Amino acid sequence: MIVNGTTIDNTFAEAFGMKATRVVITALNHRWARHAAQAMTGFATSVIGCGVEAGIENELPAGETPDGRPGVSVLMFGMSGKALGKQLEKRVSQCVLTSPTSAVFAGMCGEKCINLGRNVRFFGDGYQISKLIDGHRCWRIPVMDGEFIAEESTAYCSAVGGGNFLVLAESTQQALIACEAAIDAMQDIPNVIMPFPGGVVRSGSKVGSIYKALPASTNQAFCPTLKGMTRSHVPDDVESVLEIVINGLTDDDIRRAIRTGVDAVCALGAGQGIKRVSAGNYGGKLGQFHFHLREIMA
Amino acid sequence: MIVNGTTIDNTFAEAFGMKATRVVITALNHRWARHAAQAMTGFATSVIGCGVEAGIENELPAGETPDGRPGVSVLMFGMSGKALGKQLEKRVSQCVLTSPTSAVFAGMCGEKCINLGRNVRFFGDGYQISKLIDGHRCWRIPVMDGEFIAEESTAYCSAVGGGNFLVLAESTQQALIACEAAIDAMQDIPNVIMPFPGGVVRSGSKVGSIYKALPASTNQAFCPTLKGMTRSHVPDDVESVLEIVINGLTDDDIRRAIRTGVDAVCALGAGQGIKRVSAGNYGGKLGQFHFHLREIMA
Amino acid sequence: MIVNGTTIDNTFAEAFGMKATRVVITALNHRWARHAAQAMTGFATSVIGCGVEAGIENELPAGETPDGRPGVSVLMFGMSGKALGKQLEKRVSQCVLTSPTSAVFAGMCGEKCINLGRNVRFFGDGYQISKLIDGHRCWRIPVMDGEFIAEESTAYCSAVGGGNFLVLAESTQQALIACEAAIDAMQDIPNVIMPFPGGVVRSGSKVGSIYKALPASTNQAFCPTLKGMTRSHVPDDVESVLEIVINGLTDDDIRRAIRTGVDAVCALGAGQGIKRVSAGNYGGKLGQFHFHLREIMA
Amino acid sequence: MIVNGTTIDNTFAEAFGMKATRVVITALNHRWARHAAQAMTGFATSVIGCGVEAGIENELPAGETPDGRPGVSVLMFGMSGKALGKQLEKRVSQCVLTSPTSAVFAGMCGEKCINLGRNVRFFGDGYQISKLIDGHRCWRIPVMDGEFIAEESTAYCSAVGGGNFLVLAESTQQALIACEAAIDAMQDIPNVIMPFPGGVVRSGSKVGSIYKALPASTNQAFCPTLKGMTRSHVPDDVESVLEIVINGLTDDDIRRAIRTGVDAVCALGAGQGIKRVSAGNYGGKLGQFHFHLREIMA
Repeated sequence: MIVNGTTIDNTFAEAFGMKATRVVITALNHRWARHAAQAMTGFATSVIGCGVEAGIENELPAGETPDGRPGVSVLMFGMSGKALGKQLEKRVSQCVLTSPTSAVFAGMCGEKCINLGRNVRFFGDGYQISKLIDGHRCWRIPVMDGEFIAEESTAYCSAVGGGNFLVLAESTQQALIACEAAIDAMQDIPNVIMPFPGGVVRSGSKVGSIYKALPASTNQAFCPTLKGMTRSHVPDDVESVLEIVINGLTDDDIRRAIRTGVDAVCALGAGQGIKRVSAGNYGGKLGQFHFHLREIMA
Repeated sequence: MIVNGTTIDNTFAEAFGMKATRVVITALNHRWARHAAQAMTGFATSVIGCGVEAGIENELPAGETPDGRPGVSVLMFGMSGKALGKQLEKRVSQCVLTSPTSAVFAGMCGEKCINLGRNVRFFGDGYQISKLIDGHRCWRIPVMDGEFIAEESTAYCSAVGGGNFLVLAESTQQALIACEAAIDAMQDIPNVIMPFPGGVVRSGSKVGSIYKALPASTNQAFCPTLKGMTRSHVPDDVESVLEIVINGLTDDDIRRAIRTGVDAVCALGAGQGIKRVSAGNYGGKLGQFHFHLREIMA
Repeated sequence: MIVNGTTIDNTFAEAFGMKATRVVITALNHRWARHAAQAMTGFATSVIGCGVEAGIENELPAGETPDGRPGVSVLMFGMSGKALGKQLEKRVSQCVLTSPTSAVFAGMCGEKCINLGRNVRFFGDGYQISKLIDGHRCWRIPVMDGEFIAEESTAYCSAVGGGNFLVLAESTQQALIACEAAIDAMQDIPNVIMPFPGGVVRSGSKVGSIYKALPASTNQAFCPTLKGMTRSHVPDDVESVLEIVINGLTDDDIRRAIRTGVDAVCALGAGQGIKRVSAGNYGGKLGQFHFHLREIMA
Repeated sequence: MIVNGTTIDNTFAEAFGMKATRVVITALNHRWARHAAQAMTGFATSVIGCGVEAGIENELPAGETPDGRPGVSVLMFGMSGKALGKQLEKRVSQCVLTSPTSAVFAGMCGEKCINLGRNVRFFGDGYQISKLIDGHRCWRIPVMDGEFIAEESTAYCSAVGGGNFLVLAESTQQALIACEAAIDAMQDIPNVIMPFPGGVVRSGSKVGSIYKALPASTNQAFCPTLKGMTRSHVPDDVESVLEIVINGLTDDDIRRAIRTGVDAVCALGAGQGIKRVSAGNYGGKLGQFHFHLREIMA
């Protein structure tokens, strides 16, 4: 399959079940909502090393937030509701409670809930006050610039982590421009985040390694410098591979994101050094979700 | 003491001994060096909740980095060399190894060292190669866009955390504009970071709380909404207080940063709603470092 | 009328008939489309001094542009189709033709047209080629990074310039934060631009002056420093006034923009120093369009 | 001559005498100083079409500006002092006088002066007041957010326009990444601007054309799509050429900027698609200044 001169490999991305939640951070303006959200979603690229995978989903106009102020929505993904709840509390108390003018609200409804402000309220040292906003229980916690408003809890849901596609290019510069185009295009898609730095990852991994203690290591088959030394999946005319990893609330959300991203890559057109688009999988045995590129791009 | 119409309180900031290290992240361009650095220094506002306090120190032109590429320097502060080393390894492997085109180098010389690439190298699964760059041992780890270069280790040193000053204003908007001016002015000062979101914090705390489990809680004396209910340090004409917390390699670095920041606040001039500049301390019994505002501003 | 604690004056903005056109600039990515658009819409705050009023309307995803690449839409307003056409050609040839990877297309259909690429094509020195894209005549002009694609012409239409509202605050910082909130909220509204620097203007003017040669001068009635010296419209508790000027394709577009902007100002709430929202007019005798604030906010 | 794998052509850039001035714009914070400076320096890529070539030179910390506020320095280049003065007045009155919280000061001392605030002051309609700041005559002009301070005049000097170098690459993406690296590195060099959008230009021109009315047209020798049709200077392995044009106060300033920019391009290293660095000239007969690449890079 060839889209606008770029070959789409006959392969699939393999993704996993996760739990996800959304919170809405508001502030005096978008700039400060973003400061809080960036701090809160930092060091959150991979659940194994960071405890959570997180990212900014979208900017929200003032009219679309619970307190009518400019906002940012954040998605967080963990391996269980419990793990997610623990990370959420820690990150809200370190990065949102502390951030000038911020407030935080549930971004999701549902039966299964985790704490948002329930324990953070104790920071108020007894001066905190409960308040109902549109039927939602919130806490007003006195701080130096007034009050920090935090909703008591937020729902979480089953979700999908690890959707992905690979960009194979003649040079790193070309792969990077293509991935930037993809991230630019995917930025406004609801229900997904691309949790790696700038949305892109270059350290593709395989399960296991020659070292006992290390459960994952570099995927040599995709390392251009190892072409001559290993059974390589890197074609002769490719010198650089970059990956975009996508977490989404549903598999359809990931499908839409892959479609948008690969479209943007292919839109660069022939002569831009993009040789192939592929995807990362573990043979299909580990992950419950398979995203076949050619189906998605059909 | 009055500077350009703003009263400087006769008080001092109280700060603590910490350990600090610096690393230099380089990449194809500053944008991507910054992506890695932002991810790595996220969720790092307060050492108790985040395990480390971190921030971007400066942007480095290509000519001033070990590999001649555009770079960003990052400072990290922890309670001990060991704790710092653990956080450094984790954050480098999650946020720098993964980030397109990045490399990472020691940003500090000295006798006491912590691991930078020493263990991260095993991600190479046996394909990593040792390399001396200007006499420094580095590791070349094969990844999908080529190689990740990581220096074996970096030094760390004794440092100071928790330098601060407070801005007391008629309104939050005025306090925020003043703090933005301060952060803007402090941005290029070497050897310091302001670890909170956007550089500013609004949740001033005191030691202890009415809840056994909670070792710190809101400092009600600085909460404007509690003026009538507590023994308040908030003057009648002040409705909002914001704080800038500064970590530095030495007490002189913090002194220079406080001076620059307070100068920027005061430069806004009379009629801009800035009533006082103060500082946070715990009576002087906990922290080894005292920063007297009036001495610094003299 | 009071909205969320802020008084809305019983007055109206007075606006004028203008001609407007829209062009779509595309590029390899949004960053470079924006570079071209910013250059092209610079020095375009006021039609009298700059020959045109221009601004970026919106960012367009790759899927919504004529050539499937990321884009930016630009609106330009002039006093006649002819004047508009002259400015358009000059600015396209200086700022878009020159900008890496850019292309430019009509952003409006209609009977009345002005030149877009018709004359710019001669830069090709005979090597330019005509090309139909979706039935639209375009020119392919050879340049150093390949070809500059420019559509032959674009339509223009009757439009409205000079819609506005005024923010009266206790301090400039508060007025500025409020205007930033308004601009932030108005940013994505289609069919409008706010042509002044950062979207805000502080030099309100009246018709005429004491100097023969000068047709317009400062509106002393709105200058806080002249309260004691003139018949002032600045209330006692107001020390700063800022204005947001809006040009729109129709009066309804301006109405929606005023509504959104004033809502954002008022959303800041009481205690933030915003005393009144007003509007600028010339007694109603000069402009065909009157925008009554209280009707719009009802 | 080969620098880090990239061939430096044995050629020179040809540049011209111009007149230049510098002004310093200050504001409440850097963000608003930048808004004014961007508006003022927009539509200023080429002196023939825009009347002036202008750009932001640097950001200035509060401590380095005449009024102790954050600032931005702007350089403007014209064909004569008179032409420069006319553009300066127009652009200051449209883009700086109008911009919230701004002030404007001379950025250069010398015997030859042009008006800065001398005529703009009449906007004050008689309410303007003269004021000496550190011995410099300034005008205080009442506006809605207080006063606009504008220094009476600024000096101008002889300068150099049209310094340049060319980046020849396998693909546009690679040329663009290289030019972005160059601009990134050149950004902080004093006394120079790169006046084209994003600092880069892709429409290289030659003197004359087949059309009588057109004094300049595309330089077909550097158009990759015309390789087969003309006597081309584009090597077989090059598909895209981009240029960086530099204006500087002296030829040494331009030399330093070329050196820094070409260094940054070459630092990308082999395998990144950058084939050659060249320069644009007209045979050496038109411009007084010749910048030989190999001398500069020696």
